[in-house]
Amino acid sequence: MQQLQTLKGFRDFLPNAAIIRKRLTEKITNVFEKFGYDPLETPALEYAENLMGKYGEDADKLLYIFEDRGGRKVGLRYDQTVPLARIAAQYGDIPKPFKRYQIQPVWRADNTQKGRYREFLQCDADIIGDTNAPIADAEILSLFWNVYKEIGFKDIKIVVNSRKVLKELIQRTLAGQDITQVKFLSYVRSLDKFVKIGQEGVGKELVSKGMTQENIVYLFDRINEWSTYDYKKIEGLDGELAWSIQMATENFQLPTNSIKFDPVLSRGLDYYTGLIFEAVLPGTSGSLGGGGRYDDLINQFVGRQIPAVGFAIGFDRTLEAAKELNLIKDEKTVTKVLVAYKDNDKDVFPTALDLSTKLREAGINTEMFLDPKKDLDKQLKYANRKGIPYVVIIGEEEVKSGKYKLKNMESGEQKAFSLQEIIDSV
Amino acid sequence: MQQLQTLKGFRDFLPNAAIIRKRLTEKITNVFEKFGYDPLETPALEYAENLMGKYGEDADKLLYIFEDRGGRKVGLRYDQTVPLARIAAQYGDIPKPFKRYQIQPVWRADNTQKGRYREFLQCDADIIGDTNAPIADAEILSLFWNVYKEIGFKDIKIVVNSRKVLKELIQRTLAGQDITQVKFLSYVRSLDKFVKIGQEGVGKELVSKGMTQENIVYLFDRINEWSTYDYKKIEGLDGELAWSIQMATENFQLPTNSIKFDPVLSRGLDYYTGLIFEAVLPGTSGSLGGGGRYDDLINQFVGRQIPAVGFAIGFDRTLEAAKELNLIKDEKTVTKVLVAYKDNDKDVFPTALDLSTKLREAGINTEMFLDPKKDLDKQLKYANRKGIPYVVIIGEEEVKSGKYKLKNMESGEQKAFSLQEIIDSV
Repeated sequence: MQQLQTLKGFRDFLPNAAIIRKRLTEKITNVFEKFGYDPLETPALEYAENLMGKYGEDADKLLYIFEDRGGRKVGLRYDQTVPLARIAAQYGDIPKPFKRYQIQPVWRADNTQKGRYREFLQCDADIIGDTNAPIADAEILSLFWNVYKEIGFKDIKIVVNSRKVLKELIQRTLAGQDITQVKFLSYVRSLDKFVKIGQEGVGKELVSKGMTQENIVYLFDRINEWSTYDYKKIEGLDGELAWSIQMATENFQLPTNSIKFDPVLSRGLDYYTGLIFEAVLPGTSGSLGGGGRYDDLINQFVGRQIPAVGFAIGFDRTLEAAKELNLIKDEKTVTKVLVAYKDNDKDVFPTALDLSTKLREAGINTEMFLDPKKDLDKQLKYANRKGIPYVVIIGEEEVKSGKYKLKNMESGEQKAFSLQEIIDSV
Repeated sequence: MQQLQTLKGFRDFLPNAAIIRKRLTEKITNVFEKFGYDPLETPALEYAENLMGKYGEDADKLLYIFEDRGGRKVGLRYDQTVPLARIAAQYGDIPKPFKRYQIQPVWRADNTQKGRYREFLQCDADIIGDTNAPIADAEILSLFWNVYKEIGFKDIKIVVNSRKVLKELIQRTLAGQDITQVKFLSYVRSLDKFVKIGQEGVGKELVSKGMTQENIVYLFDRINEWSTYDYKKIEGLDGELAWSIQMATENFQLPTNSIKFDPVLSRGLDYYTGLIFEAVLPGTSGSLGGGGRYDDLINQFVGRQIPAVGFAIGFDRTLEAAKELNLIKDEKTVTKVLVAYKDNDKDVFPTALDLSTKLREAGINTEMFLDPKKDLDKQLKYANRKGIPYVVIIGEEEVKSGKYKLKNMESGEQKAFSLQEIIDSV
């Protein structure tokens, strides 16, 4: 006999948690499929060499890599973008554009003290091999927004920017100077810290990276000015971004005030080449998800350019936010009705079984209590602890009359009903 | 640049495969929930010591065990019963009976030459902590049968037996002899080979294990006699089994001819203590799933007896059989309609976007072609390759008239329809 425990850094999802997770993935899936995105599944294990060196040095340390029994170096899925790139490389004949969604767990040996778990769900949607970037970008923005809308977030803001705007911003600030890609990314990483260290902190960092006070003043002036831009003015900075925003709002029906241009949004990953975006809930810090265009990433694996744009919904953060805003009902059980016994007359049990079957056939999730000898009190207590909303009580008298007691476990109300009346009122 | 491949022994599920898998899991989930079984999820990784020594020596060799970065020995989920036992041990306050289902992948470093894969889906349903075995057994039989019925298997047979019947069979054969548990299990393993090596082969094995020719004749006489038994006669062998069968057929509405008593059905696992059963499709070899009662298994982990009964649906075999019988439609894409362009007039694209949104709002999975500059021929070819059943074609003329061409991609038929007519006919 040994006392078993959940592995540290991992979670079990007991029914109340598992049900809510299922409801949320169903909603997300539903939106993905409405837009004609097809499901894709890849195995949890990949050749280690498929994963290593793809995410950057820091991320490589978080990979679960081990040797299998055949001596092969293998690793657990770290995200869904690299497996997608492998799919694009391996199955060249997939019709393009390939619109796919993928909802599977990923594993990262992360520091659990930050409240992070080592297995978590990712919900990705991507377009691989599009031939018209602004339209594909607009659809992706629309799909992204529709996911949050479908979950019920009314005030969600899609913050957008592009790598081109960031380049324009730095180039205008350092007019005439030669800016290497490495330098550019270094500046972008400083701009990315706006929320964390504030304007002053960002300014100091940029000065330490070689900008003058004059540059900084000019830079923040531009940021403040551009922050107020609508798509017409954005056109002067990045025509494609402007077009995507216009289409997203005018044709894809995103409310104009749900898209917010933020010229310093930069997102950590180096591989973005165009549009970048995040979903932000006003009044909360951090994003509920994000994505962007990464036209050069798949190239690394395939040896030819395949444009791509997509996003990941941050499942755990989105779920937490949805719970806080009561957008997702707490459900302790999928069961709607417990069929229970008042006494153990010989006809009671068959009637209970028959009734359970009929309730199920009517589409009602019904648990039959499996021991007619138990006290009714204990059965009701069980229903209560499990969170079952209704109990149908059957005894000799009910068998004879064909009317069964239906007890509403929340209000305590109890009424005699026929089968049809039970079906109608549950 | 590197050529990426799927890890040997593992599978990718491209859309056509992923969609069918999703349809099947939805059907199975639906039946589980109808019966009031709640979902449960456990992490892919467990402490290695939780897994090792639980499945037997041969199985231990198939476990994916490795050291994580913190030096802990961990292992990938091998089945869903041991994690369930851990849950029962760790969360003692879960209301009992705990009826749960679990649909998650498991990993086994098995020989792939047998056509087995190293990651596969398991669909389990179990009752933990029941207080009335025959009723719980009857419900589990009913649930099991209902899963196959819901998928559409009309001729599925649930083959049932019990460890008690097997004991009775051996005891009567070796009347007066002292039969140890080890000896009993050894005989059972021989009986288990009936399908594989035939009656003669089984007889030879039993003689080599110490039975006399006379024993063998008596044994096969009993098997032949008992094979014809209905539940009334089974009562003389195992009262609980008889009662479960009676309840399953009379109250849970299993057709009498869908249950077949087989006194040699034994199932490999040593841990079964009562009822055992399998789903068999006439005309095919092997089972599509199976289960039984295992009252002593959780005891090993928890230190106290917790009765349990349940089963696993063999997902891959069930899916294959369902496909062969055309119970599951082949679907290459979730998309019902592709919105395509006849020309690139300035109003065509906004109209296409608007129409796509409206089709989606009407519940129709709609892909909008993302490049209005492509030839219509190429768009139709794309729809055809992707397997999209309908294409709505929009051009300048259609924008003006408000009637759009709806092309049925299978029949080739093409008709001008209003939006509402499209919604009605798709």
